[in-house]
Amino acid sequence: MNFGVIRYLLAIVLRFEAAFMGLSLIVSLLYGEYQTALVFGIVIAAMALISLALGKKPANRSFFTKEGVIAVSLSWLVISVFGALPFYFTGAIPSFVDCLFETVSGFTTTGASILTDVEAMEKGLLFWRSFTHWIGGMGFLVFVMSILPMAGADPLHLMRAESPGPTTEKLVPKARQTAKILYSIYLGLTVLQIILLLAGGMPLFDSVTHTFGTAGTGGFSIKNTSIGAYNSVYIEVVITVFMALFGINFSAYFLLFTGKLRQFFRHEETRVYLGIMITSMLLIAFDLWGRVYNNFGEALRYSSFQVSSVMTTTGYATTNFDTWPTFSRILLVALMFAGASAGSTGGGIKTSRLIIMFKALKREALRILHPQAARVIKLDNVPVHEEVIHGTGTFIFTYGAITVLSMLLVSLDGYDLATSATAVAACINNIGPGLGRVSPVGNFSIFSDLSKIVLFIDMLIGRLEIYPMLVLISPAIWRRRKA
Amino acid sequence: MNFGVIRYLLAIVLRFEAAFMGLSLIVSLLYGEYQTALVFGIVIAAMALISLALGKKPANRSFFTKEGVIAVSLSWLVISVFGALPFYFTGAIPSFVDCLFETVSGFTTTGASILTDVEAMEKGLLFWRSFTHWIGGMGFLVFVMSILPMAGADPLHLMRAESPGPTTEKLVPKARQTAKILYSIYLGLTVLQIILLLAGGMPLFDSVTHTFGTAGTGGFSIKNTSIGAYNSVYIEVVITVFMALFGINFSAYFLLFTGKLRQFFRHEETRVYLGIMITSMLLIAFDLWGRVYNNFGEALRYSSFQVSSVMTTTGYATTNFDTWPTFSRILLVALMFAGASAGSTGGGIKTSRLIIMFKALKREALRILHPQAARVIKLDNVPVHEEVIHGTGTFIFTYGAITVLSMLLVSLDGYDLATSATAVAACINNIGPGLGRVSPVGNFSIFSDLSKIVLFIDMLIGRLEIYPMLVLISPAIWRRRKA
Repeated sequence: MNFGVIRYLLAIVLRFEAAFMGLSLIVSLLYGEYQTALVFGIVIAAMALISLALGKKPANRSFFTKEGVIAVSLSWLVISVFGALPFYFTGAIPSFVDCLFETVSGFTTTGASILTDVEAMEKGLLFWRSFTHWIGGMGFLVFVMSILPMAGADPLHLMRAESPGPTTEKLVPKARQTAKILYSIYLGLTVLQIILLLAGGMPLFDSVTHTFGTAGTGGFSIKNTSIGAYNSVYIEVVITVFMALFGINFSAYFLLFTGKLRQFFRHEETRVYLGIMITSMLLIAFDLWGRVYNNFGEALRYSSFQVSSVMTTTGYATTNFDTWPTFSRILLVALMFAGASAGSTGGGIKTSRLIIMFKALKREALRILHPQAARVIKLDNVPVHEEVIHGTGTFIFTYGAITVLSMLLVSLDGYDLATSATAVAACINNIGPGLGRVSPVGNFSIFSDLSKIVLFIDMLIGRLEIYPMLVLISPAIWRRRKA
Repeated sequence: MNFGVIRYLLAIVLRFEAAFMGLSLIVSLLYGEYQTALVFGIVIAAMALISLALGKKPANRSFFTKEGVIAVSLSWLVISVFGALPFYFTGAIPSFVDCLFETVSGFTTTGASILTDVEAMEKGLLFWRSFTHWIGGMGFLVFVMSILPMAGADPLHLMRAESPGPTTEKLVPKARQTAKILYSIYLGLTVLQIILLLAGGMPLFDSVTHTFGTAGTGGFSIKNTSIGAYNSVYIEVVITVFMALFGINFSAYFLLFTGKLRQFFRHEETRVYLGIMITSMLLIAFDLWGRVYNNFGEALRYSSFQVSSVMTTTGYATTNFDTWPTFSRILLVALMFAGASAGSTGGGIKTSRLIIMFKALKREALRILHPQAARVIKLDNVPVHEEVIHGTGTFIFTYGAITVLSMLLVSLDGYDLATSATAVAACINNIGPGLGRVSPVGNFSIFSDLSKIVLFIDMLIGRLEIYPMLVLISPAIWRRRKA
């Protein structure tokens, strides 16, 4: 294990976080929140100093998958701790565990909040809170590496650890180039959404923060009643569509932008992803129609927003879906676990993993009928490595096991079954709200510190897709330090 | 596909079912229930006639995995339909869907009931109802084949389809011999339990029926309040221990009875199975202590009975565990899915599958650290085939997908989340009771016919471990009829 290169990467990560926080400092100044600006300034200075102290270039630059995995998991812990400081030192959130919960929830694009009155918070802090979604959405380390070339450190090792999905494809031969293309798409869609929200009459600050929450599929709102506060069909449609767009595999956009239209429209994961989404929107609309809403149009308006929000793991709400019939609620919880596409900013298990598993199931059934026939599983006509199929099954099992274990720990707080179970589902899948006392009208402040820690570890496990967090606590890593 | 041999097997299966039903006829006569005895007689005669009509020996005796799978799934459907007739024609259960639900619940050793007053039912029918558990527990077709040798039809193909677990081992070179050994163990334990219950003062009829329910890990009781009706620590301890014993992999007993004591005590699945069980008993006892029961002994009495009952997927109850704290309830639901050992009469995912998946997870994590190292997963020091590991992941995913789909269908009845979700969990894992309105004090009569059909299909899917049922509805089977 090359610890020198990891230390160096952490230093750079801190430098970037300081720069991002600088933007929040400016927002604070613009709104005349001088005390908060001062806190931002002090935290930025501290990060800069620590970064300088750690930032000596390592002599040995060898950098492989294990270094990538450790660098990613440590970076996410470090940016969360420093990102939490402004909330703590301004006194906006008195408990440090709460500050950490809110910041991890931000960076992991979960959007679960311990705040009971969001609107009381200062603008600079609200901006930082929403900005963490945007920063966390596409991956912090990959971003750093795409801007700052470092000889010997192939960003592919970082992308593997930080980008969601069963496989990591390079769109162009160089991984750094791939990252740059992805960020251009991310930035382009972000700007487009801000413009469209402004055009609908949403104030600039609201448009920017809600776009950050949409782009990262995060879900923090600056309103207590989330997007429902605007009660505007136009705004809901824009956000519904953009949540869905940010849940698409960015490789598909790459096909679109390089003129490969035919391949774009045939992109398997995107077709299945949109298929599940539209089917779910219709099923829930029919379930709500006549029971909750009298006309089908209204039922579809609320169902489509909520399905897009939950399946992309954003977590915005326009109504309290916990009051919906059981069928709709079960379907929403199932969609939480299904999640968005691989290579998107969304969480959950991911559509491509579901496709792989359904194909593996079909193959198992056919094997009974024709034991001799060898079958290769393909995704977009490309054979999927047996190791990947294998790993996908293990991944989903582990995901389930961690979910159950977390539910048991959280249930010690003594809340009801739906609250305990969906709090975990909402955190590990990076959604935000769940059912019961963590529904869109509730929040996570009710839990004990132990539960909050379990829940934000779940957020990290969900965002980094288990292994980086698992490897970090594996004794094998630390035992071999001398080797 | 050799349909002749499948038809012949179905005929033999009917003949055996008729013989088993004969025992119920005798019980009816002994209790002076002449009308019910007459109904049994007519159904037995019908089965015998149909069996004779179908029973021509096939010219082509080729018999492979696919024939085994189809024979198993069709047999289970056929015995369920004929097994339901006595309930229907005596008028004891007026709706045929309910009759089928109760019978499938019996054969699959689920023990979920639509009866609201069990004690009102006649003795002959109660005997038949509990007897289905005992018959279904160790597999109907394997039983038939172990008694009736049929040239060319290797029972291993049937065992693979009908016996629970990721792999099917032959304990001795001949599969038929293996089956005979397993049935001797089954019969021996059954007789021992009846004697022990009689010794505790339980009446003969009650001892026999409750032993059937224990041996098959079924859970049908002849009392409305299940085992709680006896309020006897001795009886509870006997049943707790025997439920646990019937949840052990029968291959482990084979080691015991052939004097391989060292191997028996090292049997990996049994150790993990008992480890999970004892840990869960203690955890729940601590959760109940002070909250539900004032002294630890009492807490342990109820927790150990319920953990043994739920984990072995039996489903007997001594109290309504739905009133327990959230931690205990979540742990019980998790144990429903974990299930008993492979090669036992219990349901659920099975301990050996969990062991395989945890080892696969560990391997994935180590692969990140040492990508080159090749690692073989072993169970009891024997390498597990990569195909089996692979298939285990797919199995668990499919299990989860069917569970979610079933929950959605059942939720259309509009009951609360806990009822809809745990009704499915209790049926697919072959437990019996769940939480909410299907708790030990509730029952399954509340559901619509559609939900009941979904639930009894889930029972069959759970008992036969998915593939036989899946292959039965696969178009590829029926399309190739001419080939």
